[in-house]
Amino acid sequence: MAKIEHVSPLAPESFPKLPMINGITFSAVEAGIKYGGRNDVMLALLDPGSTVAGVFTKSATRSAAVLDCQSKIGYDDPSGAAIIVNAGNANAFTGRNGEASVRAVTQAVAHCVDLPEKRVFSSSTGVIGEPLPHNRITGKLEELRASLSADGMEQAAEAIRTTDTFAKGAGKTIEINGKSVSIAGIAKGSGMIAPDMATMLVYIFTDAQISRAELQSLVSDLNHVTFNAITVDSDTSTSDTLLVAATGASGTEVTSNTPLFKSALHEVMLDLAHQVVRDGEGATKFVEIRVTGALSKADARTHAHAIANSPLVKTAIAGEDPNWGRVVMAIGKSGAAADRDLLSIRFGDIIVAEDGWVSPSYKEEEGASYMKEQDIVLHVDLGLGTGDDTMWTCDLTHGYITINADYRS
Amino acid sequence: MAKIEHVSPLAPESFPKLPMINGITFSAVEAGIKYGGRNDVMLALLDPGSTVAGVFTKSATRSAAVLDCQSKIGYDDPSGAAIIVNAGNANAFTGRNGEASVRAVTQAVAHCVDLPEKRVFSSSTGVIGEPLPHNRITGKLEELRASLSADGMEQAAEAIRTTDTFAKGAGKTIEINGKSVSIAGIAKGSGMIAPDMATMLVYIFTDAQISRAELQSLVSDLNHVTFNAITVDSDTSTSDTLLVAATGASGTEVTSNTPLFKSALHEVMLDLAHQVVRDGEGATKFVEIRVTGALSKADARTHAHAIANSPLVKTAIAGEDPNWGRVVMAIGKSGAAADRDLLSIRFGDIIVAEDGWVSPSYKEEEGASYMKEQDIVLHVDLGLGTGDDTMWTCDLTHGYITINADYRS
Repeated sequence: MAKIEHVSPLAPESFPKLPMINGITFSAVEAGIKYGGRNDVMLALLDPGSTVAGVFTKSATRSAAVLDCQSKIGYDDPSGAAIIVNAGNANAFTGRNGEASVRAVTQAVAHCVDLPEKRVFSSSTGVIGEPLPHNRITGKLEELRASLSADGMEQAAEAIRTTDTFAKGAGKTIEINGKSVSIAGIAKGSGMIAPDMATMLVYIFTDAQISRAELQSLVSDLNHVTFNAITVDSDTSTSDTLLVAATGASGTEVTSNTPLFKSALHEVMLDLAHQVVRDGEGATKFVEIRVTGALSKADARTHAHAIANSPLVKTAIAGEDPNWGRVVMAIGKSGAAADRDLLSIRFGDIIVAEDGWVSPSYKEEEGASYMKEQDIVLHVDLGLGTGDDTMWTCDLTHGYITINADYRS
Repeated sequence: MAKIEHVSPLAPESFPKLPMINGITFSAVEAGIKYGGRNDVMLALLDPGSTVAGVFTKSATRSAAVLDCQSKIGYDDPSGAAIIVNAGNANAFTGRNGEASVRAVTQAVAHCVDLPEKRVFSSSTGVIGEPLPHNRITGKLEELRASLSADGMEQAAEAIRTTDTFAKGAGKTIEINGKSVSIAGIAKGSGMIAPDMATMLVYIFTDAQISRAELQSLVSDLNHVTFNAITVDSDTSTSDTLLVAATGASGTEVTSNTPLFKSALHEVMLDLAHQVVRDGEGATKFVEIRVTGALSKADARTHAHAIANSPLVKTAIAGEDPNWGRVVMAIGKSGAAADRDLLSIRFGDIIVAEDGWVSPSYKEEEGASYMKEQDIVLHVDLGLGTGDDTMWTCDLTHGYITINADYRS
């Protein structure tokens, strides 16, 4: 694996102070799956009565752990739950042995923390195609159980990193009917990131009281405009997992339509999604692609997707080149409706192109100066209708090549 | 524009010796469109009776020259034809002025070589969004006409280069009914290359006698398995143009079903398509992606496309890493049918993965040693049906980033 010498220039200054979520405890341990000298397994334990919702990769070659989670996620069960995650080995494309490893881990966790096996959710992230040394995980379960603590969330975030250059967390506390409700989540991911979903593991916890079905509906909706609206390199992992668990410990009941709760969860999910982009492999720029005026919302997403995944747009941004011609190219190739002569393109507030050509007011120096910013907004208006969408991506740099040309060696 | 210091390591040793095509003459000139010290405009003049067929980019933001060619290509006309091409400026996304420039150039050429304007086809390649200084082209037309010559094809190939590191040509002479028929073509392209079609300009000439309709049908068919089967960076140009012209000067009549002619034209088109990949920006490896056993031919193309465009697969190849896990990932994300446990993957003749896991016979040293080759064959069998397809691509390297992060500056 390529050494990660530096923290991403787009990283937040420090890990945020997360609210504690009543009804859940965390621990992390060094199991030596692949790395040495760092924790690489985390355990989260949820009190009885907690509800769990999830969204998973759509990959046709998804990992054994994802398949196992999917088989368990759709049921109500009051017994509590556990989440066990390892970094360093994805246990993906490991044939029948992969399924056996998942079973070995989830059975051992169930036994250790006294839960039914169907309430144990597992994830694995790292290299594909190598057998998971699951005994190293099961051999550490007692230690994990013994060290469970309510304030272990940052440690858990550290333990699930692979090529991540910083641990990712986000949280929010709101007041609903005079009582406080908290949400806090952690994530990992920096490459193989594209919608549907990304090489991303995300775990979000709240002490709100919400039914499994309501939570699932809310999470699926918000996923579309958060984790499915980011892309680093257009590649989709076999292991993507988003789990959201509600302990109910706040005693405050919410539904998928409680505005304050919905917007707070949206904020936490978007914050974590942006952090994944900000840790995009080799990223030096954080880019928001805003598409308006498309024929439909789906068309707007198609255009945003084409721009956000275009290697030529992404290398131009890396080179601080306001190369709007490449944006025109990406719109043209997307397959969604566009009329060359109705397009307008803005970099930040600078109108660069309109009426099928460079804007008469545009000055190249202004565009070039804007491109030196670290956060770039690229706004395309199609001039055709009212469909809009926003996606987030990063630039494509030498760093991406360096990291990925020798990941395994 | 980034300086191109080196010729691609994948380049052929020299420009091939092309057969002369009776009934057509070429010339090239320095018009100073953007570059200095090199020719940047070419003219090809076809005798009366020639037929012309074409395939163009499907981009919704295609250039004025492409739109003009498309409006002219579908008609029979015995008056002969001219093709005029400039490098350095794509005249794309230049609004109404773009159309005026195309008209100015094609009218002037028509006048100069005494053809109806509808028989003058033009292409422009280079930067998008800057006005084409068409007077520099029209001012050189007399010089171009005066220097037309039957053996000017290599010079023409040189004149249409942009970021190309070598001029591209391919030719073939066959015997049909005891008479020789020749085909020769030139191409440019090295970035913004993806199916449908590529930033590619391709001009192929033959002295066979073939109706316009037959030629068009043949070219459209062969395009799918040649120029539409290559990708460098998944980006699609606004200017892609393939023109194939038949002068009939050999006196040998052929149709779209004449096997010898069809296979010779296929060979020339594939050769030029491969040369475009071999000149892929930053390329150090030529990669054939062979997909078999898919549910359908369309599914096979979808899988091949996903593998060929995956930045993670392409960077692994750049790093000479036999990272078959990333191939599994690409198959999983493609959206076409796949069954993890029926997949098999070969690098060259080495079977790497089968039955949902790494093959028991696979040795990592053998895979690593194979990846040091310059030409790599990656063969995926889905184990589902009889659909097959082949695509060609190159690796993704620091060179690509260097070239594209400061193309305009």
